[in-house]
Amino acid sequence: MAVNLKAPLAADLHPVCGLRIGVAEAGVRKANRKDLTVVLLEPGASVAGVFTQNRFCAAPVQLCRQHLAAGLGVRALLINTGNANAGTGEDGWVRAKSTCVALARLLDVAPEEILPFSTGVIMEPLPVDRIVAGLGAAMEDAREDNWLAAAQGIMTTDTLPKACSTRVAIGPVSVSVTGISKGAGMIRPNMATMLGFLATDACVSQSVVEQLVHELADGSFNQVTVDGDTSTNDSFVVIATNKAGNPVIESLDSPEGRALRAAMMGVAQQLAQSIVRDGEGATKFITVKIEGGRTQLECQKVAYAIAHSPLVKTAFYASDPNLGRILAAVGYAGIDDLDQTDIDLYLDDVHVAVKGGRNPDYREEDGQRVMKQSEISVRVTLGRGVACATVWTCDFSHEYVTINADYRS
Amino acid sequence: MAVNLKAPLAADLHPVCGLRIGVAEAGVRKANRKDLTVVLLEPGASVAGVFTQNRFCAAPVQLCRQHLAAGLGVRALLINTGNANAGTGEDGWVRAKSTCVALARLLDVAPEEILPFSTGVIMEPLPVDRIVAGLGAAMEDAREDNWLAAAQGIMTTDTLPKACSTRVAIGPVSVSVTGISKGAGMIRPNMATMLGFLATDACVSQSVVEQLVHELADGSFNQVTVDGDTSTNDSFVVIATNKAGNPVIESLDSPEGRALRAAMMGVAQQLAQSIVRDGEGATKFITVKIEGGRTQLECQKVAYAIAHSPLVKTAFYASDPNLGRILAAVGYAGIDDLDQTDIDLYLDDVHVAVKGGRNPDYREEDGQRVMKQSEISVRVTLGRGVACATVWTCDFSHEYVTINADYRS
Repeated sequence: MAVNLKAPLAADLHPVCGLRIGVAEAGVRKANRKDLTVVLLEPGASVAGVFTQNRFCAAPVQLCRQHLAAGLGVRALLINTGNANAGTGEDGWVRAKSTCVALARLLDVAPEEILPFSTGVIMEPLPVDRIVAGLGAAMEDAREDNWLAAAQGIMTTDTLPKACSTRVAIGPVSVSVTGISKGAGMIRPNMATMLGFLATDACVSQSVVEQLVHELADGSFNQVTVDGDTSTNDSFVVIATNKAGNPVIESLDSPEGRALRAAMMGVAQQLAQSIVRDGEGATKFITVKIEGGRTQLECQKVAYAIAHSPLVKTAFYASDPNLGRILAAVGYAGIDDLDQTDIDLYLDDVHVAVKGGRNPDYREEDGQRVMKQSEISVRVTLGRGVACATVWTCDFSHEYVTINADYRS
Repeated sequence: MAVNLKAPLAADLHPVCGLRIGVAEAGVRKANRKDLTVVLLEPGASVAGVFTQNRFCAAPVQLCRQHLAAGLGVRALLINTGNANAGTGEDGWVRAKSTCVALARLLDVAPEEILPFSTGVIMEPLPVDRIVAGLGAAMEDAREDNWLAAAQGIMTTDTLPKACSTRVAIGPVSVSVTGISKGAGMIRPNMATMLGFLATDACVSQSVVEQLVHELADGSFNQVTVDGDTSTNDSFVVIATNKAGNPVIESLDSPEGRALRAAMMGVAQQLAQSIVRDGEGATKFITVKIEGGRTQLECQKVAYAIAHSPLVKTAFYASDPNLGRILAAVGYAGIDDLDQTDIDLYLDDVHVAVKGGRNPDYREEDGQRVMKQSEISVRVTLGRGVACATVWTCDFSHEYVTINADYRS
């Protein structure tokens, strides 16, 4: 069902020097399924993360925050699928910590140097024994050219693995930027997506990586939604292994900083859009662009109101230009002093509504033509300022209901 | 598909003295369908309304507000289905006004004494000629015992007409309270529902009716949601025809005021719940009750987060006790300082989560038993105060997608 999304090729994913990946079958939930991934970092990497704003954040999210705050550096990521370890209370925290302790012992580092990530069903106890038992096999599997296996190893209801890679010149040095993500449902990231990992071998200071992780999340994962359900486990981590030999990037305002940021933003956006393209049951990829607002925040409110409306999303699914539903969503987005007579609506190049009413030149067959496409752009101009915002989303199909009515069975 | 909802019997709907109803086929959208309803009031009725907070409010909603503000009194309601006259700009206002002028001429009253209501597809021009041509037949049909025909005449995707009636003693006088409503999709009323009309023959002052309409809306229609889409046309009107002969009710704090309010609230709640029971594709009726909040507003935020979550709604549809999805919704409801370790979750009598984690005594089969019921209560205690809120909603099924993917075809 994924919309214009292909599985990445292993050969297209550039290794990142100083970072090795291993996967294993730990039997967390299903048999015959790689569900355990370790990402091993050589000493000296700069690492930063952003995490879900859901107040029911999972135990591993709480631990990641604590371990990053400890400031000892990061030597490994430990990722399981099949179980979110969320809604598990104090016991969930103890279980997540146990897995970090086990991996730390194998690596001879401190538990605080491990970042744990979990994704899957909520409110089930994490099977610590099975994860710990699988760590050896995952470590034996570790190598630099294993990104595709990691992208596969972190999938849940995803139909395709999500990975993207590029190389960029930082001064005289060519560096790698490679990332993976997962997610298809419970997607309305509020800091980051379900799981996203982006690494470069460029040399970048810790403070710049911390700045980068926020800018990249805001420009990519924080602009997508599938169903409006902000996950308990959203995590996005940026890693610079500091192995490429370029002079350390100390500022994003330098030419090297700008070049790296642009390359990483391109990869992050592609990973974020991949989640929407593989959104549960998706048949259309929709870009919602709001222009002419007073603030970016009010533009985002309107964009998300459209992107979350079940009526708008089912109309896209049906290729039905029932576009008044978009106007209704604009109207209830929460801008109290919005004047409907200032508002225009475009569907790709088709000018549907003028000053809050149907454009006299609008013909149903023009709307119909655009609605049948697999990639559609909705543009609303609010006519009250110069701010804008973009959100990427998908439609809402029978398949979404089927997937989520059957997810645990 | 409606959940425990039956069509009302005409004989159960008490006539309201001083109010006659007529319906006709005007051919607004479909052939062989009563789609035009007039409600004719004798002079001297007390009438008040509340309307959608959607900034894209429909032309008839704008006119209702203007006509009520004119203060000339109300002599008729004019209701069409099949076309919402929303997202129609200045032209929509002119068309709505034309229908009021035509009915006012037939009744020999001022156009400002007519309240117009429309429901149906958005952003299509209202067929004024057909509506005006149908007015004669509707007026000829007018009689006091015609409530069921009105309930049928205002339906859109509703599968059943919605009406409710009772009689209550106001001092020595027995008065009628009868109402109708419509709505099944685009239901997240924010002041009132798609269309709701509630009438009594009791004698009630204008100021008390104005107070009543807000209290009744807040206690009934403002507590329901089907899909979170606040309509452009929500309207709820309360009419007191002042014909019953009781001493005029001048205060809701009097014994007579309290008795009338209780009777009208009972009818309004049943009408509001009928909309959820007939929610598009609904197979379950769900009561979400949030307790222990600091404010009613934060309890409402949590209740609506649960009630709008596609993941929660599809789990109910599947009878799957995937209850971590409810905790996730609580977590992203927007209470920034919520502590997950304060939160308990109950499904009917089953204590599912304790202090933010799975209740050790919770057994999956107990959750499964409740999830299979057609009426389910979700109760979340926030443990931070004494405020509470209730929202009534339904599940989210394949049928919802089918209905909304096919609505215009």
